[in-house]
Amino acid sequence: MTLDATLDPALRSWVDSANLPGADFPIQNLPFGCFHPADGQLARCGVAIGTQILDLLEAREAGLLDGLRAEVVDACGAESLTPLFATGRSGISSLRQRVSALLASGGDAAARARAVPGLLVAQDAVRMALPAVIGDYTDFYASIDHATNVGSMFRPDNPLLPNYKHVPIGYHGRASSVIVSGGPVKRPMGQVAAKPEGPPTFGPSARMDYELEVGAFIAGGNALGHAIPLAEAERHLAGLVLVNDWSARDVQAWEYQPLGPFLAKNFATTVSPWVVTLDALEPFRVPARERDASDPPVLPYLTDARNERAGGFGITLEVWLRSAQMREAGEPAVRISHGDFTGMYWTMAQMLTHHASNGCNLRPGDLLASGTVSGAAKDSRGCLLELTWRGSEPITLPNGETRGFLADGDEVILRGWCERPGAVRIGFGECRGQLLPAG
Amino acid sequence: MTLDATLDPALRSWVDSANLPGADFPIQNLPFGCFHPADGQLARCGVAIGTQILDLLEAREAGLLDGLRAEVVDACGAESLTPLFATGRSGISSLRQRVSALLASGGDAAARARAVPGLLVAQDAVRMALPAVIGDYTDFYASIDHATNVGSMFRPDNPLLPNYKHVPIGYHGRASSVIVSGGPVKRPMGQVAAKPEGPPTFGPSARMDYELEVGAFIAGGNALGHAIPLAEAERHLAGLVLVNDWSARDVQAWEYQPLGPFLAKNFATTVSPWVVTLDALEPFRVPARERDASDPPVLPYLTDARNERAGGFGITLEVWLRSAQMREAGEPAVRISHGDFTGMYWTMAQMLTHHASNGCNLRPGDLLASGTVSGAAKDSRGCLLELTWRGSEPITLPNGETRGFLADGDEVILRGWCERPGAVRIGFGECRGQLLPAG
Repeated sequence: MTLDATLDPALRSWVDSANLPGADFPIQNLPFGCFHPADGQLARCGVAIGTQILDLLEAREAGLLDGLRAEVVDACGAESLTPLFATGRSGISSLRQRVSALLASGGDAAARARAVPGLLVAQDAVRMALPAVIGDYTDFYASIDHATNVGSMFRPDNPLLPNYKHVPIGYHGRASSVIVSGGPVKRPMGQVAAKPEGPPTFGPSARMDYELEVGAFIAGGNALGHAIPLAEAERHLAGLVLVNDWSARDVQAWEYQPLGPFLAKNFATTVSPWVVTLDALEPFRVPARERDASDPPVLPYLTDARNERAGGFGITLEVWLRSAQMREAGEPAVRISHGDFTGMYWTMAQMLTHHASNGCNLRPGDLLASGTVSGAAKDSRGCLLELTWRGSEPITLPNGETRGFLADGDEVILRGWCERPGAVRIGFGECRGQLLPAG
Repeated sequence: MTLDATLDPALRSWVDSANLPGADFPIQNLPFGCFHPADGQLARCGVAIGTQILDLLEAREAGLLDGLRAEVVDACGAESLTPLFATGRSGISSLRQRVSALLASGGDAAARARAVPGLLVAQDAVRMALPAVIGDYTDFYASIDHATNVGSMFRPDNPLLPNYKHVPIGYHGRASSVIVSGGPVKRPMGQVAAKPEGPPTFGPSARMDYELEVGAFIAGGNALGHAIPLAEAERHLAGLVLVNDWSARDVQAWEYQPLGPFLAKNFATTVSPWVVTLDALEPFRVPARERDASDPPVLPYLTDARNERAGGFGITLEVWLRSAQMREAGEPAVRISHGDFTGMYWTMAQMLTHHASNGCNLRPGDLLASGTVSGAAKDSRGCLLELTWRGSEPITLPNGETRGFLADGDEVILRGWCERPGAVRIGFGECRGQLLPAG
């Protein structure tokens, strides 16, 4: 049924927590990440399995990775996944297959692995690090529902611009301020104006928002001046993560013309720590979003039969919120919206191919993000700007608090997973961040 | 007269070519750069002096840098200037002062330096490298004349947006495709539309342009969440370079709404190889551009008396063009416009402080660019879009060729220098690139 034995639904791990129903990290997932074994220690690469992490440095030292390509083995000693991603899809796949053999129930490799002390560390005993050294971060705008909603607020007479159905619209974000899940985010200061014509004042943003997105790390990459055809695009995708593209909406409204968002976004972007490989996502492929009969044809460089048939990924997404008051009262986070990645107007492969279509060079570790994942239904809007319609329709939390935008102390948690009959459910873990007061 | 002995106009070097009138690199300049001593060899750090380069690795090996801070000495063995820039303005200044002593006529240090074989290499014998590992590249829009000209083409009814005189408008560029002077630039493919509402076609850009800009490399930097007050901004500027922000105008017009320029810019950005330090620029400080009486006040975080009095730099800029036909006929490049950096609406310090005002972290080696430097006069427009008014008023070259936009084979050369009575002229060298055909 599948060519890749690592995806066999019957496969089970000797790490018991990986076999529990609903686990994010069964042996069919095996996402890559980086962690600090202890405070002050350098980050290491690892693989999530159940509630544990397989330490790739320890695995290498114990000889468990022998026989893999030298650059793959070398990469397992690095402080980030960027060297692994530089080995390309084939390098990542070969390592994931080896790790699957080490962690599967039964077999010689597993027996050797179980005998290595310190091979596994508990996820809750370590601090996660950013998965990769991110050279460049690009954010797209691939949800047509998001683009239409936001456009109708900022340009009521002209919500969806004429280029939208032709161009996977994107812009460059800030790489330096991408942080890993768990890091706090300070409410930014900025220029805001009560009226479109100004004058502005400078102070803390009063319209703080999250954006629910899916990100992709680049594997391999292309030389400057050389495009990547759509048929080859996925060879350059290492895997996917969840992304919270924190946004200061009042700063954005005042600054974004004519060159796009800048300080409204670049104060922080949070990514989930585990990079779910394209191999693990293989069972959850879905067709690209079908075009309406009235939609214009997609230009040839951005379409082919395979992308139409299987260029999407069936990822269910959720946004959870926990206010300071809820935390103090011991109340759990509450789900405030859900999303479906299958509704995106452009696939990740299309975004990547468009990005490189002018010869722009993508490098291993670069991050692409999808833009806010929103659906047509109100409860599938992926940011408060849409969910509360610019704050005019606040949401009510279980304890009676209301939110038009985020309040200091609010914690935002993104979750995502894939499931379908006949395959083992896999998850992305969490992308979590708390908003701290300005200053 | 000046506190820094390296700027003494009477200072002369034992490197004769540095003392010639009009030299870009007299001993009062001493810009930093990186070069490959031979093809296939790793890049090294060096200092330009006349037609030569002082090799900082050789200087270090010969003990000529002994006594400087350990991290400064270490940085002189790196493959880029990023580690030197990480030592901050004080590290850069201390190294420049030492190099000045090594290269000055007379004195013990100079005698020791002259005795070191291989300390100097000829600039025309080596290939220059990118000065720094650029983490993030940000492009501003700080010329009000440029913003007004371009605005009047794209939005005739609304050329200068209400935020312009309050916000140093900027956006994130692409770090991966920043290249050093001399590297060729391929005409990019892209989506272009004959009508604003589309539909687009995909093919080579037909409206290729350069942009004359000044760039600044970051020294030191700030932690995420911590702003940089204006009074401290220049402590985080290593020095300035020339920047050509190549642009595909037809791609830009179709793609830039609503998130700003993307593929129209990110196929290549060329920088000059020599970073002219803020110390060397000290004699050429000028007041920030004076505001008109009708201009709104600048918000307090972006203004102080020192910036008003001396936040600008008096840099004269030029754009030269040489077509393939001119080159074949042995004709020299022709100057097609000139610029004056003193006319910018925002100073580099203001751009930097604005950038970090929301807590966005700037890292050593990051590049900020000013945006196109244009003046009010037609011959001081810093790109062809303005100079030919979107191609409608082509310029004529000496051999009769005309240009609305760039043709394949055109070489664009940016030059810049500072001069004033009582100081020794210093120059930036060249920022050069040739446009190659698409494909």
